[in-house]
Amino acid sequence: MGNPYYECPLPVTIPPAKPFLESIKLGIKETLFPDDPFRQFKNQPASRKFILGMQYFVPILEWAPRYTFEFFKADLIAGITIASLAVPQGISYASLASLPPIIGLYSSFVPPLVYAMLGSSKDLAVGTVAVASLLISSMLGKEVNPNENARLYVQLALTATFFAGVFQAALGLLRLGFIVDFLSHATIVGFMGGAATVVCLQQLKGILGLVRFTHGTDLVSVLRSVFSQTHQSKRKPCFFWINAMAPMMSVIVGSVLVYLTNAEKYGVQVEGVAVGRSFAMFKNYHIDGNKEMIAFGMMNIAGSCVSCYLTTGPFSRTAVNFNAGCKTAGSNIVMAAAVMVTLLFLTPLFHYTPIVVLSSIIIAAMLGLIDYEAAIGLWKVDKCDFIVCVSAYIGVVFGSVEIGLVIAVTISLLRMLLSVARPRTFLLGNIPNSMIFRSIDQYPIANNIPGVLILQIDAPVYFANANYLRERISRWIYEEDEKLKSTGGSSLQYVILDLSAVGSTDTSGISMFKEVKKNIDRRGLKLVLANPRSEVIKKLVKSKFIESIGQEWIYLTVGEAVAACNFMLHASKSNNQVADEFDAHNNA
Amino acid sequence: MGNPYYECPLPVTIPPAKPFLESIKLGIKETLFPDDPFRQFKNQPASRKFILGMQYFVPILEWAPRYTFEFFKADLIAGITIASLAVPQGISYASLASLPPIIGLYSSFVPPLVYAMLGSSKDLAVGTVAVASLLISSMLGKEVNPNENARLYVQLALTATFFAGVFQAALGLLRLGFIVDFLSHATIVGFMGGAATVVCLQQLKGILGLVRFTHGTDLVSVLRSVFSQTHQSKRKPCFFWINAMAPMMSVIVGSVLVYLTNAEKYGVQVEGVAVGRSFAMFKNYHIDGNKEMIAFGMMNIAGSCVSCYLTTGPFSRTAVNFNAGCKTAGSNIVMAAAVMVTLLFLTPLFHYTPIVVLSSIIIAAMLGLIDYEAAIGLWKVDKCDFIVCVSAYIGVVFGSVEIGLVIAVTISLLRMLLSVARPRTFLLGNIPNSMIFRSIDQYPIANNIPGVLILQIDAPVYFANANYLRERISRWIYEEDEKLKSTGGSSLQYVILDLSAVGSTDTSGISMFKEVKKNIDRRGLKLVLANPRSEVIKKLVKSKFIESIGQEWIYLTVGEAVAACNFMLHASKSNNQVADEFDAHNNA
Repeated sequence: MGNPYYECPLPVTIPPAKPFLESIKLGIKETLFPDDPFRQFKNQPASRKFILGMQYFVPILEWAPRYTFEFFKADLIAGITIASLAVPQGISYASLASLPPIIGLYSSFVPPLVYAMLGSSKDLAVGTVAVASLLISSMLGKEVNPNENARLYVQLALTATFFAGVFQAALGLLRLGFIVDFLSHATIVGFMGGAATVVCLQQLKGILGLVRFTHGTDLVSVLRSVFSQTHQSKRKPCFFWINAMAPMMSVIVGSVLVYLTNAEKYGVQVEGVAVGRSFAMFKNYHIDGNKEMIAFGMMNIAGSCVSCYLTTGPFSRTAVNFNAGCKTAGSNIVMAAAVMVTLLFLTPLFHYTPIVVLSSIIIAAMLGLIDYEAAIGLWKVDKCDFIVCVSAYIGVVFGSVEIGLVIAVTISLLRMLLSVARPRTFLLGNIPNSMIFRSIDQYPIANNIPGVLILQIDAPVYFANANYLRERISRWIYEEDEKLKSTGGSSLQYVILDLSAVGSTDTSGISMFKEVKKNIDRRGLKLVLANPRSEVIKKLVKSKFIESIGQEWIYLTVGEAVAACNFMLHASKSNNQVADEFDAHNNA
Repeated sequence: MGNPYYECPLPVTIPPAKPFLESIKLGIKETLFPDDPFRQFKNQPASRKFILGMQYFVPILEWAPRYTFEFFKADLIAGITIASLAVPQGISYASLASLPPIIGLYSSFVPPLVYAMLGSSKDLAVGTVAVASLLISSMLGKEVNPNENARLYVQLALTATFFAGVFQAALGLLRLGFIVDFLSHATIVGFMGGAATVVCLQQLKGILGLVRFTHGTDLVSVLRSVFSQTHQSKRKPCFFWINAMAPMMSVIVGSVLVYLTNAEKYGVQVEGVAVGRSFAMFKNYHIDGNKEMIAFGMMNIAGSCVSCYLTTGPFSRTAVNFNAGCKTAGSNIVMAAAVMVTLLFLTPLFHYTPIVVLSSIIIAAMLGLIDYEAAIGLWKVDKCDFIVCVSAYIGVVFGSVEIGLVIAVTISLLRMLLSVARPRTFLLGNIPNSMIFRSIDQYPIANNIPGVLILQIDAPVYFANANYLRERISRWIYEEDEKLKSTGGSSLQYVILDLSAVGSTDTSGISMFKEVKKNIDRRGLKLVLANPRSEVIKKLVKSKFIESIGQEWIYLTVGEAVAACNFMLHASKSNNQVADEFDAHNNA
């Protein structure tokens, strides 16, 4: 039946079915090992494989033998630089987590040593981070009051750290690190901004010198707490404000200075794995996200056993490490040593650190996290991402950190599910003087082919969108038919589905194609497929759909499908009317 | 810079940005009104709009004025036919839901009347269904024992029906009926098969004449219940089996007869909306799923107020209605009338219906739901769908109905998320004697172009797959580089990304493109884009990526991109080597 206008370069190929086990193996490899971490092991003798394996799991074995004095000099400078950040930040963030300052210092001592052995990033500086600290205090604070039952609270924090480590290591070992990818960039901008706002609000306690303070993290509780105390001090409100003014001014001035010098303004980034990865890109080496997850997990498991709480790779400190010229993870060892010296000799001094200084350190670090420029960028490029971002922010600031997280993840997933459930379909037209067919929406110059409706389905067809696509295609056909009837032109004869963008499908998708064919047949039209892809054509063959449509009605390109339709239209009419129409359109 | 080999038919067009509100309006329309239900209202005077609106919401106003005696004769026969099914099934399913038989009959009286007014399907027969009945007894049975506290149990069942109706009507009014699409065909085959198995197992009580029986629905509890009772009757096991034998034989013979005559074998289908829709397709009229949801919701709300429990449109009865030649929803009115007569005059008779008869009615109806042929079809076409189906089945049979539902929905969603998170990337090659480029995997005849790596991304780029795609593209480049180095051929110069299948993207996707470009630049290669689609190119422009790549490096087709790359390679070499290589490949 299908008798194309001109010679096809090639019919659509049906690839041979792969054995089930092989395709499962390939699927698992692509899902869990997309970066092919074991490619260096291929074609190596067993002894070499063992050494490579040890170096793979304990990277220090790889770089330590090549360690030079040059490297050491660079790492020493970088290590001392980041230690000078680690000490005050460690103390501040520990107070944010309602933990004793000493635990913040411990956390900058053991985990960096573990990471130096197991981690594969050369630039990552290990330490505690503000958002995780806030999460700890807001979640554990609900169960145990850190002021009344400090010992139990610390134990709970260390247990939480241990299980966080186990969870990280398990995700890494099971190669499930990609789950983290489901937090979109927009979600993270909103969430981090919200968390930073909350952290800053919490600092009002230290800055205003308030004694009693809410345990809630939301804006309403905090403002109520602040205003009720100023209200209670109603008799001498001036004194209260004078008391608060000096430290507040110092914080404001300090923060403005930090902001102007841009010291913390490295933009918002997912902390941890993504941090290592972004810096690895600068130096052009590769980071295996799942292996890093294992390193982070081991570092938290080991840390929790020696009184360290949750640590990761903070972006700001890693950037400082990078700029200070670190060469290997050795800078983490130097930092750990410097922190140890601090612990041994300088701890008594920290007893006298005023809370307001800690608060200002935290606020200074937090201002860089409120990335309003990124939010503006989101608004410009993708309104929907902006809405996700703002929802996450509002959820964190007005609800709680958990509510914010849940809202952010839910909206992101819903948005993705919605985009899967509602793929676009486009009407294609012929670009003049070519065999190319493109969407008429995008290329208004493209021409309709009389009697032929060409639709492009713009996404994989799955159960979630099969019903929608069936309805949408039937609406396209109905509308085209109505249009042709009203203009009195030639009636619709062929429906070409361009499957170029349909990467895969499932049994619901196959049912959709069958129903679309039935519907088209009932209208007395003919269904033609163009460029079905490997996965799709395999399933069309297995489900016997190909027999019902006829392999001669499946073409490699839309151009060939149209040529074949035109040939048939031409053959069915007694004169050259159709071909003339086509040529006239082409030359228009 | 971009200086193509031959004249482009057209550069890639950047469509003008749509106003924000207009694009939101379009998005909402495509998401919630994909079938454009109000298209008939366009360009009509106000009075006509009012009449159409009334007919839209109360379809009986549309068909009743045109009702003829011919229609009535057809509906009368069909209505009496389905009433003869509705009475025994109503009683049986009520017993399955642990409700008094009379409630099963009521449920075939009021809801069909409501549906006849509000429903838009001409073929749907309203009534109770086995799976929903099972769900009611298994869920409510946990809270209230129907034997000990029958009155409370009935009240609970009616309240549940009311809220189910409210939920259905709300989904329909909010045009969120598409949420149902997220239950895949495979899930439903497995879930319905599992539920049918469980229902049949429950009938062992009636068939074996057991007195005490488990309230659990899982296989283990039921078998334990059956064997413990046969065990207790150990002293006269023969008598037990003789007692059980006669009814069991009648059920077996009856079921085999039903199976052979194929009366119930209409295959598994989502009940309710999908049922109406499939029959509407036969008669070539359109069903608005969301409007049907509202009709079902109203019918359950009204029903629950007059002692009817959950009803929907069962597939088997609808098929009988269709085959009996119904013309309008009038057949439901006839059925309701027939059931009313039964209620008035024949109710006393049902008191003597033996349980074993009810059990056999249920088993006969259930056998059609265990659609092992569909499961075999799933295995043949899509292994992954088969796994989803089997998991749902096992979850229902060995766990509980709720566990089965949760497993089924979770696996379906996970599978879809995974497919979004791991889109395929393909290496493209040139189909000899053409400008067509296709996957080398699918078309082994396709040739590599020396010095040019052509990759096709096979799905929309979102936050969930942006990281993966970046890693995967960098691995493709690394591998191609290694291969070229090892064969000593010409080195890699250009990377062409074919974006034909990338229907849309978000800000994470744009970041991915930026990072891929940085990575390619660092390797001293050149990134070229082919056929970016409307949504993608808009975002590339807004994010200024287009300026960094240069619009002259974006081509309408892969063929033109390759031609331009070859031209540049050619210009950079002193002789015709590259062009010769290309021609040699093309003629190979």
